[in-house]
Amino acid sequence: MIEYPHLDKINRPEDLKKYSLEELKVLAQEIREYIIEVMCNTPGHVGANLGVVELTIALHYVFNSPSDKIIWDVGHQSYSHKILTGRREAFRTIRKFKGISGFPSRDESIHDAFGTGHASTSISAALGMAIADKTLNPNSKNTFIAVIGDGSMTGGMAYEAMNHAGDTNANILIIYNDNNISIDSATGALKNYFIHLITSKSYNQLKNTAYEQFKETFLRNIVNKTTSIIKNNLFRHSNFFESFNLRYFGPVNGHDLKQLIDILNNLKNIPGPKILHVLTQKGKGYPPAEKNTVIFHNPGKFDPETGEIFKNTNKENCPIRYQDVYGKTLLELADKDKRIVAITPAMVSSSSLDIMYAKYPDRVFDVGIAEEHAVTFSAGLAAQGLIPFTTIYSTFLQRAYDQIIHDVALQKLPVIFGIDRGGLVGEDGKTHQGTFDLAYLNLIPNMIISAPIDCIELRNLMFTAYNYQKGPFAIRYPKANAEYLDYNLPMELLPIGKANILKEGEKVLVISIGKPGHDVVELYPEFEKLGINPTHVNLRFLKPLDTETLAGLCNKHDIIITIEDGTLYGLSATISHFLIQNKIYSKQISLGIPDQFVEHGSIGELKHMLKYDKENILKTIQQAYREI
Amino acid sequence: MIEYPHLDKINRPEDLKKYSLEELKVLAQEIREYIIEVMCNTPGHVGANLGVVELTIALHYVFNSPSDKIIWDVGHQSYSHKILTGRREAFRTIRKFKGISGFPSRDESIHDAFGTGHASTSISAALGMAIADKTLNPNSKNTFIAVIGDGSMTGGMAYEAMNHAGDTNANILIIYNDNNISIDSATGALKNYFIHLITSKSYNQLKNTAYEQFKETFLRNIVNKTTSIIKNNLFRHSNFFESFNLRYFGPVNGHDLKQLIDILNNLKNIPGPKILHVLTQKGKGYPPAEKNTVIFHNPGKFDPETGEIFKNTNKENCPIRYQDVYGKTLLELADKDKRIVAITPAMVSSSSLDIMYAKYPDRVFDVGIAEEHAVTFSAGLAAQGLIPFTTIYSTFLQRAYDQIIHDVALQKLPVIFGIDRGGLVGEDGKTHQGTFDLAYLNLIPNMIISAPIDCIELRNLMFTAYNYQKGPFAIRYPKANAEYLDYNLPMELLPIGKANILKEGEKVLVISIGKPGHDVVELYPEFEKLGINPTHVNLRFLKPLDTETLAGLCNKHDIIITIEDGTLYGLSATISHFLIQNKIYSKQISLGIPDQFVEHGSIGELKHMLKYDKENILKTIQQAYREI
Repeated sequence: MIEYPHLDKINRPEDLKKYSLEELKVLAQEIREYIIEVMCNTPGHVGANLGVVELTIALHYVFNSPSDKIIWDVGHQSYSHKILTGRREAFRTIRKFKGISGFPSRDESIHDAFGTGHASTSISAALGMAIADKTLNPNSKNTFIAVIGDGSMTGGMAYEAMNHAGDTNANILIIYNDNNISIDSATGALKNYFIHLITSKSYNQLKNTAYEQFKETFLRNIVNKTTSIIKNNLFRHSNFFESFNLRYFGPVNGHDLKQLIDILNNLKNIPGPKILHVLTQKGKGYPPAEKNTVIFHNPGKFDPETGEIFKNTNKENCPIRYQDVYGKTLLELADKDKRIVAITPAMVSSSSLDIMYAKYPDRVFDVGIAEEHAVTFSAGLAAQGLIPFTTIYSTFLQRAYDQIIHDVALQKLPVIFGIDRGGLVGEDGKTHQGTFDLAYLNLIPNMIISAPIDCIELRNLMFTAYNYQKGPFAIRYPKANAEYLDYNLPMELLPIGKANILKEGEKVLVISIGKPGHDVVELYPEFEKLGINPTHVNLRFLKPLDTETLAGLCNKHDIIITIEDGTLYGLSATISHFLIQNKIYSKQISLGIPDQFVEHGSIGELKHMLKYDKENILKTIQQAYREI
Repeated sequence: MIEYPHLDKINRPEDLKKYSLEELKVLAQEIREYIIEVMCNTPGHVGANLGVVELTIALHYVFNSPSDKIIWDVGHQSYSHKILTGRREAFRTIRKFKGISGFPSRDESIHDAFGTGHASTSISAALGMAIADKTLNPNSKNTFIAVIGDGSMTGGMAYEAMNHAGDTNANILIIYNDNNISIDSATGALKNYFIHLITSKSYNQLKNTAYEQFKETFLRNIVNKTTSIIKNNLFRHSNFFESFNLRYFGPVNGHDLKQLIDILNNLKNIPGPKILHVLTQKGKGYPPAEKNTVIFHNPGKFDPETGEIFKNTNKENCPIRYQDVYGKTLLELADKDKRIVAITPAMVSSSSLDIMYAKYPDRVFDVGIAEEHAVTFSAGLAAQGLIPFTTIYSTFLQRAYDQIIHDVALQKLPVIFGIDRGGLVGEDGKTHQGTFDLAYLNLIPNMIISAPIDCIELRNLMFTAYNYQKGPFAIRYPKANAEYLDYNLPMELLPIGKANILKEGEKVLVISIGKPGHDVVELYPEFEKLGINPTHVNLRFLKPLDTETLAGLCNKHDIIITIEDGTLYGLSATISHFLIQNKIYSKQISLGIPDQFVEHGSIGELKHMLKYDKENILKTIQQAYREI
């Protein structure tokens, strides 16, 4: 049992304030060890959290949460914050069934000022809170703090928020947590755009010599509020933030507790919007994580001593993921047609585009965390004759909804959307579920919307989309392992908008879309054992809907069961609408995700709530036969 | 008949190149006169188009469309471009039935390189095109030009695109059209944030003296590519764009044809991403439009001689619009509760928030064209105890879809969404239709979604939303005149999620949501004349759905008719789903907007396509009775 004598005394942030600087340094070390102890068994975000231990301590030491509010952009770097704000023991349950969330959550603690998970929201939220606070309590001295990384700073809404903030006197402090890396950069594909924005060539020299030399002057000048000339000469890049009328301070060493505490104490007394540039290192203090920042972003289980990542031995017969099949297939297609390019918002390796990047670095465009731009940029590529495979997590595609409608669909531009992590995503919880996509895409005109039943169909859909070229084509696939080792069959052209009848039976019709259909296929032997014989159709395309096949099948069956891994506003509502419009008055049973589901985050809870795992599918079908 | 001798000779952009500078100046004058001649009878955008006449001429004079591509951000300033690219005569039909679109459209002309309508998309599209062009034709010298105004530059995706562009060597030219105004600024509510970004105090002096003095040096230096020192000294604000690694040139006088042509000719030979800062004046050359830029953004019909705006005399008994009822009611509520605030993305007067602004300027937040920030900022305001009425056009709310889900709904924050221009918007056409909102909101958990049947119900819903405070509450109202002069009744609390049975009848059940229900009410006397007696329920709330009332009613009727002014994925699909889930196997007839509709833009076409005007509603109901 590892002991944490200093940490064990902290039950709320006030407890911190009793410690001396030296004790705080020991506390930082204990927090690091505790994070590693928990994370090596409980997969979660490691690198980002190790990078902000001192910053978190300093913020809670200087400010008073919950009067002062700290908003953690993206939120996956809030572990130290959780540990220091009454959730030290609960931290062992993070991302588990009935455990605490991996992201800040207003439901969980009064110290979680704003729920985060998607990037670039923190400045907007902090600004709103600061203005509300001042409106309701004109004498308030509270500070509203947005901690935002350089990756998140590429998102357009951060810019919109800075633009607004600089025009107010709101008491916000933006901590620009600069670790010079987004989630993904190891492949070299991710060009870190923010380097262009915020660093100058002379920076590294300054860090070590000039900065130390000028530190005293610098801090004194902050208090005197006359730093601009010195700063401008020292750090040319500060102009970027000052364009927004934000007072810029920094950069400071984010692992130097004394420096952090001193400057935060000074900033506390400076009213209005301001930005502090803090330099941190992902994985700080844990050599394996310092060395391999990409893998240690979210490494899964690992040996805390050596940093060796444990392979998931249960899955050894099926080691490839859907995203890998996508990535490998894309390379195959790219080999044959030089017009094919890939676009990703900061997820080169997370979406397995590193496979294509390794061979064709000039044909993989990582645009940073910038989904809006990613989609309209793709529209531009398509308008001029390239064939873009725009690859985005389902949950993040929500960011580009208007661009899909306005820039792609209305113009019928042939952008192929590879929608990764559609459906349930497990431990990341409610902020990251890919359960809305089929429903929100369905109402967009001119879209082709598909979801493969298995990884082979994923390949065939990619090939079909590549050959289509008459408008946008969405292929939505899950965060899951592929079904077959021998997925690598020659690709086939699929008829667009045609469903695939996999099994002709009687009385009960099962309509599935996407991977849940594969579960149904695996149940075929069970059906035989039970003496039931349902028909099973793999819809493949939600849009255009195969009304001909559906009409033929629905009229011949007594009960229709729809199965989808998304909101019931997707397949279920679409089939109901089809039935009513076509005057087919059959009973429909809907397996999918009801609204209430979003209240629950973790994967454990899912198993309790959802009814479309194999066992429940079988039960539901059996029950349907009983009802006839 | 006004004559346009120079303009009449221009049938394609090449024809321009034959003219001398002096002739081009006359041409500019003729284009202005032509725009005013057409616009005074055919309502459209005036101010923005008068501002870019010289810029448009210069671009087509120097570059070669369609090899070089010009993308007009927002698109409502493309009239001169349309006139010069083969649509001179067609321009008389702009925004009319079977006429040309008020926005660039790829379907309409090879010179409309990219369809626009929503703001801030042009740089992304131009960058995509430039990269595609270079990939497919490595020796291409084509230039991809994004013309973007200062208003659009506040949108986050423009920033995302600049951030990407600066990291490429793509041959794009961003024309930053700086008229120091967005659509709305007359009320003083719109603080023009871009002033903070791009102008310095010394600017106005420079414009008149220093700039003229340095012009020669300046232009020579552009060619020599060594301008940075001079420019930095002259125009400190250039640093903002240079942070993105974009070569910055300007500012230049956007009404000086010679200067424009000279600098564009120079820029043509400079490869890579670059930005030209052009100063223009909205309404230039037409004194009434110069004087009143807000009204002349889209003035409706006016007297070309005097600039007097004609009131719409047909509507004199009903002069107030839904948006005005909203604005007045908001002020009424704000009078009673100081926690109430309003938020708008650059639409203070266009959403009638000027009414509240006049009395409470500090409680109306205009955040610029920045819908993403607007919503999350509102979430922050709500989290800290204010009551935000976040007022956004339906079509622009698409920009904030992820923020509604992730920052508001998942956290159950009580943001009230006043969704203006829901449903059909008329002449603006397909890029601006508010037809998707009910459907895309419906699938978001924790939302209350309502649409008032008339302006009195709009008031009551606002009052109800104000009192709710348990989560987000959407109120969606049309671009339309209000029904009553005496709308100003005391506000009533409505039961949330309860439908309102307006008329109990038999056999046929009409379920309406929103204003189309008022048309049904107006048909009651016709029903009597025809001897039919349908039941009519005003649903009011799409979510939560009043399943109890619906079950009672649907079971008692033979045919159900749903009426909505939005996509059929909204009410129609929801009712079908309800019917099937509740095993009510009734015939449903759906009046609403089918997908194919989006191919058609203008209001004239709507009348031909849509079946839910009063006449068609009546016919449909009659037909239903015949079928029973």
